[in-house]
Amino acid sequence: MPSASKRERMLNQSRILIKGGKIVNEDCSIISDVYIEDGRIKEVGLNLQIPAGVTVIDATDKLVIPGGIDTHTHMELAFMGTKAVDDFHIGTKVKKEMETLAKEKGVNSFKMFMAYKDVFMLQDHELYAAFSQCKEIGAIAQVHAENGDLIAEGAKKMLSLGITGPEGHELCRPEEVEAEATQRAITIAHAVNCPLYVVHVMSKSAAKVVSNARRNGRVVFGEPIAAGLGTDGTHCWHKDWAHAAKFVMGPPLRPDPSTPGYLMDLLANDDLSVTGTDNCTFSVCQKALGKDDFTKIPNGVNGVEDRMSVIWEKGVHSGKMDENRFVAVTSSNAAKIFNFYPQKGKIAKGCDADVVIWDPEATRKISAATHHQAVDYNIFEGMECHGVPVVTISRGKVVYERGQLKTQPGQGRFVPRQPYAEFIYKRVNQREQVGQPSPVIRKPYDGEIIAI
Amino acid sequence: MPSASKRERMLNQSRILIKGGKIVNEDCSIISDVYIEDGRIKEVGLNLQIPAGVTVIDATDKLVIPGGIDTHTHMELAFMGTKAVDDFHIGTKVKKEMETLAKEKGVNSFKMFMAYKDVFMLQDHELYAAFSQCKEIGAIAQVHAENGDLIAEGAKKMLSLGITGPEGHELCRPEEVEAEATQRAITIAHAVNCPLYVVHVMSKSAAKVVSNARRNGRVVFGEPIAAGLGTDGTHCWHKDWAHAAKFVMGPPLRPDPSTPGYLMDLLANDDLSVTGTDNCTFSVCQKALGKDDFTKIPNGVNGVEDRMSVIWEKGVHSGKMDENRFVAVTSSNAAKIFNFYPQKGKIAKGCDADVVIWDPEATRKISAATHHQAVDYNIFEGMECHGVPVVTISRGKVVYERGQLKTQPGQGRFVPRQPYAEFIYKRVNQREQVGQPSPVIRKPYDGEIIAI
Amino acid sequence: MPSASKRERMLNQSRILIKGGKIVNEDCSIISDVYIEDGRIKEVGLNLQIPAGVTVIDATDKLVIPGGIDTHTHMELAFMGTKAVDDFHIGTKVKKEMETLAKEKGVNSFKMFMAYKDVFMLQDHELYAAFSQCKEIGAIAQVHAENGDLIAEGAKKMLSLGITGPEGHELCRPEEVEAEATQRAITIAHAVNCPLYVVHVMSKSAAKVVSNARRNGRVVFGEPIAAGLGTDGTHCWHKDWAHAAKFVMGPPLRPDPSTPGYLMDLLANDDLSVTGTDNCTFSVCQKALGKDDFTKIPNGVNGVEDRMSVIWEKGVHSGKMDENRFVAVTSSNAAKIFNFYPQKGKIAKGCDADVVIWDPEATRKISAATHHQAVDYNIFEGMECHGVPVVTISRGKVVYERGQLKTQPGQGRFVPRQPYAEFIYKRVNQREQVGQPSPVIRKPYDGEIIAI
Amino acid sequence: MPSASKRERMLNQSRILIKGGKIVNEDCSIISDVYIEDGRIKEVGLNLQIPAGVTVIDATDKLVIPGGIDTHTHMELAFMGTKAVDDFHIGTKVKKEMETLAKEKGVNSFKMFMAYKDVFMLQDHELYAAFSQCKEIGAIAQVHAENGDLIAEGAKKMLSLGITGPEGHELCRPEEVEAEATQRAITIAHAVNCPLYVVHVMSKSAAKVVSNARRNGRVVFGEPIAAGLGTDGTHCWHKDWAHAAKFVMGPPLRPDPSTPGYLMDLLANDDLSVTGTDNCTFSVCQKALGKDDFTKIPNGVNGVEDRMSVIWEKGVHSGKMDENRFVAVTSSNAAKIFNFYPQKGKIAKGCDADVVIWDPEATRKISAATHHQAVDYNIFEGMECHGVPVVTISRGKVVYERGQLKTQPGQGRFVPRQPYAEFIYKRVNQREQVGQPSPVIRKPYDGEIIAI
Repeated sequence: MPSASKRERMLNQSRILIKGGKIVNEDCSIISDVYIEDGRIKEVGLNLQIPAGVTVIDATDKLVIPGGIDTHTHMELAFMGTKAVDDFHIGTKVKKEMETLAKEKGVNSFKMFMAYKDVFMLQDHELYAAFSQCKEIGAIAQVHAENGDLIAEGAKKMLSLGITGPEGHELCRPEEVEAEATQRAITIAHAVNCPLYVVHVMSKSAAKVVSNARRNGRVVFGEPIAAGLGTDGTHCWHKDWAHAAKFVMGPPLRPDPSTPGYLMDLLANDDLSVTGTDNCTFSVCQKALGKDDFTKIPNGVNGVEDRMSVIWEKGVHSGKMDENRFVAVTSSNAAKIFNFYPQKGKIAKGCDADVVIWDPEATRKISAATHHQAVDYNIFEGMECHGVPVVTISRGKVVYERGQLKTQPGQGRFVPRQPYAEFIYKRVNQREQVGQPSPVIRKPYDGEIIAI
Repeated sequence: MPSASKRERMLNQSRILIKGGKIVNEDCSIISDVYIEDGRIKEVGLNLQIPAGVTVIDATDKLVIPGGIDTHTHMELAFMGTKAVDDFHIGTKVKKEMETLAKEKGVNSFKMFMAYKDVFMLQDHELYAAFSQCKEIGAIAQVHAENGDLIAEGAKKMLSLGITGPEGHELCRPEEVEAEATQRAITIAHAVNCPLYVVHVMSKSAAKVVSNARRNGRVVFGEPIAAGLGTDGTHCWHKDWAHAAKFVMGPPLRPDPSTPGYLMDLLANDDLSVTGTDNCTFSVCQKALGKDDFTKIPNGVNGVEDRMSVIWEKGVHSGKMDENRFVAVTSSNAAKIFNFYPQKGKIAKGCDADVVIWDPEATRKISAATHHQAVDYNIFEGMECHGVPVVTISRGKVVYERGQLKTQPGQGRFVPRQPYAEFIYKRVNQREQVGQPSPVIRKPYDGEIIAI
Repeated sequence: MPSASKRERMLNQSRILIKGGKIVNEDCSIISDVYIEDGRIKEVGLNLQIPAGVTVIDATDKLVIPGGIDTHTHMELAFMGTKAVDDFHIGTKVKKEMETLAKEKGVNSFKMFMAYKDVFMLQDHELYAAFSQCKEIGAIAQVHAENGDLIAEGAKKMLSLGITGPEGHELCRPEEVEAEATQRAITIAHAVNCPLYVVHVMSKSAAKVVSNARRNGRVVFGEPIAAGLGTDGTHCWHKDWAHAAKFVMGPPLRPDPSTPGYLMDLLANDDLSVTGTDNCTFSVCQKALGKDDFTKIPNGVNGVEDRMSVIWEKGVHSGKMDENRFVAVTSSNAAKIFNFYPQKGKIAKGCDADVVIWDPEATRKISAATHHQAVDYNIFEGMECHGVPVVTISRGKVVYERGQLKTQPGQGRFVPRQPYAEFIYKRVNQREQVGQPSPVIRKPYDGEIIAI
Repeated sequence: MPSASKRERMLNQSRILIKGGKIVNEDCSIISDVYIEDGRIKEVGLNLQIPAGVTVIDATDKLVIPGGIDTHTHMELAFMGTKAVDDFHIGTKVKKEMETLAKEKGVNSFKMFMAYKDVFMLQDHELYAAFSQCKEIGAIAQVHAENGDLIAEGAKKMLSLGITGPEGHELCRPEEVEAEATQRAITIAHAVNCPLYVVHVMSKSAAKVVSNARRNGRVVFGEPIAAGLGTDGTHCWHKDWAHAAKFVMGPPLRPDPSTPGYLMDLLANDDLSVTGTDNCTFSVCQKALGKDDFTKIPNGVNGVEDRMSVIWEKGVHSGKMDENRFVAVTSSNAAKIFNFYPQKGKIAKGCDADVVIWDPEATRKISAATHHQAVDYNIFEGMECHGVPVVTISRGKVVYERGQLKTQPGQGRFVPRQPYAEFIYKRVNQREQVGQPSPVIRKPYDGEIIAI
């Protein structure tokens, strides 16, 4: 049993007062203090009455934002004969990856593949069945939307043309291969009135498909990722093989350099809804498995650590979105879709104390030399970012402070989630109730019928 | 000086506990009680400690929503030789109309007309100047977007073809006349980096223009109105002149019957942002001024009283949007744009106690026979609406309860508003700072120059 | 051996002079005479020197147009347990149907089905293979573009909802089921650089997909049909079962009444290219096989006889297209695509003498009471059409004249066609030559490779 | 009076037989000989019977195409204080410029400016009046579509930001300034049912506007120019002032490098119809008038000489269009729109003998060092072009042969043209007749009317 002073110290560690910051929620920003106790936000306001001895963090001139929720990351993923070099210990600031969750209870989303023929790829009638089941149990269906048949044929064709380098990866699966599958997934999901979540929207064409579907009332969410918002696929044409290979992922980063700006415009405008990373990092010597054949390059890029900075720089600093939309796309919307809002994704009394203190004026340069990931390069290398996280608090504990990681392996927690997320299912259920077609009432046909 | 008991009674009148309802804000819904005192929401939560003797309103199975903000209405408006038959006393549950506000301090929006040639219509360079000024003072520019030259010519043409009835009103200003002006206003506003608000978006074409502009990052907001969302312009072709004339407004209700559903889809999807009514009611005998010439029919329809019901029916009951989006488009977004959020538009501690208790299951039939407006018809006549307001509280006072109006003439209040609304100006200002073009640095041209 | 006078008579029968008409080709119209001999147009001009004794047809104030080419019709088709009631003898004014041709030599187009699951439906990799083969042999691939899986599931769902009438046919395969498949077919065809022809484009959504693909440079042609241009799917909701059943075809006529006008706009604008009928007529007592289950209603509507009139009325009389575009979409474009232009599809020296003399001022009312097809109803019943064929000449013989059919059974001829139609393959081949991607030239990667 | 032998020689000069070439018209290509006499094409066919002594040109393996019609060029234009350095003598292979024609009889097109405020710019009501007049007299209205107010304001703004170089020219009139005006012009033209021709469509946005309008049935034609199809506006950001200034024209070449390919796709697809050059060349020392202020740089680029080669290279060689579409966009469509088809724009018996013999396999490099224009640079400098003109015949005379110009000053001819070009007015007139709205027939309103 800990001594009284130790108990007191432990207690105070879990009592934090963030003073003088500007609290940023998705709906508005307000100067206020935040008092945290036992992993929860206990009070938000000015002139709060706080017990003595709490840890005080000065957030003057800083933003106090809900902890980011990376909707899409992979840690220690076995993939294509190798595995990701970031593992769970390194990645536990963040939400665990979808496939792992699928094996646990409390999962309310399932990811289906339209790509990876002969491995994961589902046929349309299988998608129909899977989406039906998602709808049945109140989950959201997720798709990796690329036409697997076309990729398989395209890869053969590129190799036959003597194209073995990383550029072949994109050439065998151009934009329209992604856009087609996205359109198909949305059509099938709509047929069963199932909400859909398109992971890693990588191209203008696919993003346009999502955007148009939303205009037409489809319950669909598109997730661009940090890589797609912060860099582009021209790198895969780089003369240095190793450089080019680092940027290989699927669906590919697009060679059209206007892609990132376009995706950010749609993200700002709620045509796209949330941001992930699809973080799945392989070292150069792992990538090198595909040195003579692009189809053997492990697919994956980094992103998890730099996601917030990249989105701030390209989204907020550029003036495309404001700080509130930033919170929506990095945190609140994900919490709503995956059904743990307002427990997470919001700074308010009673919410989980997942908080980032963000300095919007500070700048940093992204580099593999300084990042905390194991991988030996960074696809955002050299990007100057405005907006730097100063302190990160996870469930009431400071896990990062001014450059120092303070977390321990195993500190991540799975958050069990309920099905029928209101954010998506209120509409779905209402349509189910009032939107069903009904038969025309007729008197029976009583004329002649041909004999066959 | 009032006696002690009277003081006590007055105090209790201004102390209200709403119990057991589901509080609906734009971000989520939650079962909670709401305690109101002195015109403000004092506390939100369960098991609140409340003084004795307060008025308790049972809201079990009801929704508790922020008071609606009609972004666009006209009371006692002199227009085209007659004036609206609803006057201020009848309309003070609602926000005052724009032009009136413009003469007072605390106004942060200004409306410009591209229609009404030789009366209000501005030329492009005047719009440019006006938008520049709005930008300068931190206001939002509003436009009535129709090409006034084309309307003037179109009206002459229709009369020359012998078309004198209400159908001529739409025929002389078809969709593209609205869409063209909308595109032009957005282009001009963007040239000066001024936020723009398009009042009464009435057509699919114009809505598409707004929607596309938002995708491209323009800071523009589109306002459909209750009439446009709940009915259509086929009525102007009605064989009964009086019936047809009731539906005459500008820009016109469109004869394409898919218009209301389309506008609602865009409103659900945040392509359109807020809802007004452009309420401006004329009795049939006023409309009759134009019995021989549609250009003399006073322009205006009702809507202010039925706005919430129409939007609930066509938007929420249909499953196009959920209750949270309903709050956003009827209240929160308007509060943000006009810069009094979260004072209004939200149910939370410290906000103004403008609250509606809403029964989502109840239904009512809209009819001139039962409405509270002075006008002798209702363009939504006979519409069966799910979703009925049970109690309305304005600044802490019950002003409507189960069919009874309890308000007094003069109870409306002008809400002075600050310029530079964060919701719109954070992006605008950031762009101003980082988005300016810069010159190419060159050494001066030192070659030959022609003599002229 | 015929006598001299008989020889002379036969010769003169095959010598026709059309005098004083306005010759309409796709590029322009010109007043000129046309002299026909031995099945060919021998001369076009004024003041022609003509042998004595030829048959002279006065075409003053009439148009002289190339014989229509119905790109898509079915005669005596066994389908769904019954067969079409028009047979070859009745249909030989027109081009034979695709499937029949496929069994003969001289065929340069092949039709693939994405619908009719478990019967005709091809999977994506099968389409890929089929399109590759078409490309290989210089043919054009045709698709019936509907998602067969979704139709199969949709049909089950409708029946489970108690919807057994003709309206269920459309409800189980709404627009997006067609648009999705169209997009997919175009994507797959493009992957193999194969020209594509989408038969019976029936919806605005699918037409938009074709139109957008063409804008992006895809070699794709869309074929609307007479039924889709002249009527709509609201009929399937008719209270009289027999009436409703007559309009059942696949893809279905759409209930959106703005569909025909939209398709005609795109046809006028060369977003859509040719017009067929998909003529496949079943009598009411054949249709009645599906009286209790819409999935058993034989799919097909009439059209072959009225195609020209319907397109003239809705296209030319309405002012959407001129007479030259009419010729393009009813004749010349089909001849080009199927590679017998200018042998057919043009009125010029040396072309086949397939000629229609068309009275643009005359009107007629379409009716089953007067039509020449065997079927006992007409989906265009009662349509008043401007534009009436006066005389039809097929390979130099008058086969129809002022209401009288003069053709004999067996008079139709199969026209063998060459592959690699220049109209479509010039671009395809050029792209094949200059459009192939090439590898980035790099020095080999010589770094470390992970061992696995 | 010439001697007999001289007469004979002159006669033979005007008698040309082009042998063995492939005749390319817009509808198809065919191997055939062409016999020319007295400025006209006398016969087209194989094995023609030709008088002795005619000039024979061997065109084996060459294409024989209709002489190009540059829809838009300026020679010796006084503009902005200086004038174009190409004058009429140099430019007479080509059609004279629009403004000159407008002063002569036989003109059927008129160009209106929406740009050049305080000089040429028309207000909307003036455009309305001008378009009405065009419609009245059977002409086609042409517009330079840019919003002149926005340009004027934009120019002031750029100068105030210290941007004085050529890049300022584009920055003050970005794409949307062009797109807005294009949309407005189309809307106004449609209101009066007047056909519209948009000169120099320079941006993707404006091209999209034209394309969408055509889909909606508007009678509008868009003209991209050689400069816009062959190069882009990134040059205006060049570090060398003189280089940058050469590319200054209005509307500007766009900095988006995907613009030329996009315009070519639309041109190939008949979303855009014809190609001009807006040729208007100024030498560097003339351009230098604006060395300190981009608004003083004379606007204009070269193009007239290289138009055909640039379009062939970027359009035909790339596989975007075939040789027939090439003829349509460089010659036939212009002839149709300006109403001298088939006199020009076609190779057939009776047409004017304006013929180019084109070698599709030969290549040449465009350069100021070798071009025939007076100006001292070429914006296409260094472009390798497939497709080279070998011989040019104008009204039956060889005016260019294998690098040698054989024309004399003053050889150009104005071609008087009739109004009501069938290609555009057949539809316009039909709509006028059947498309007018009609009044609803009602019994008069007999109710109360308010007294005012």
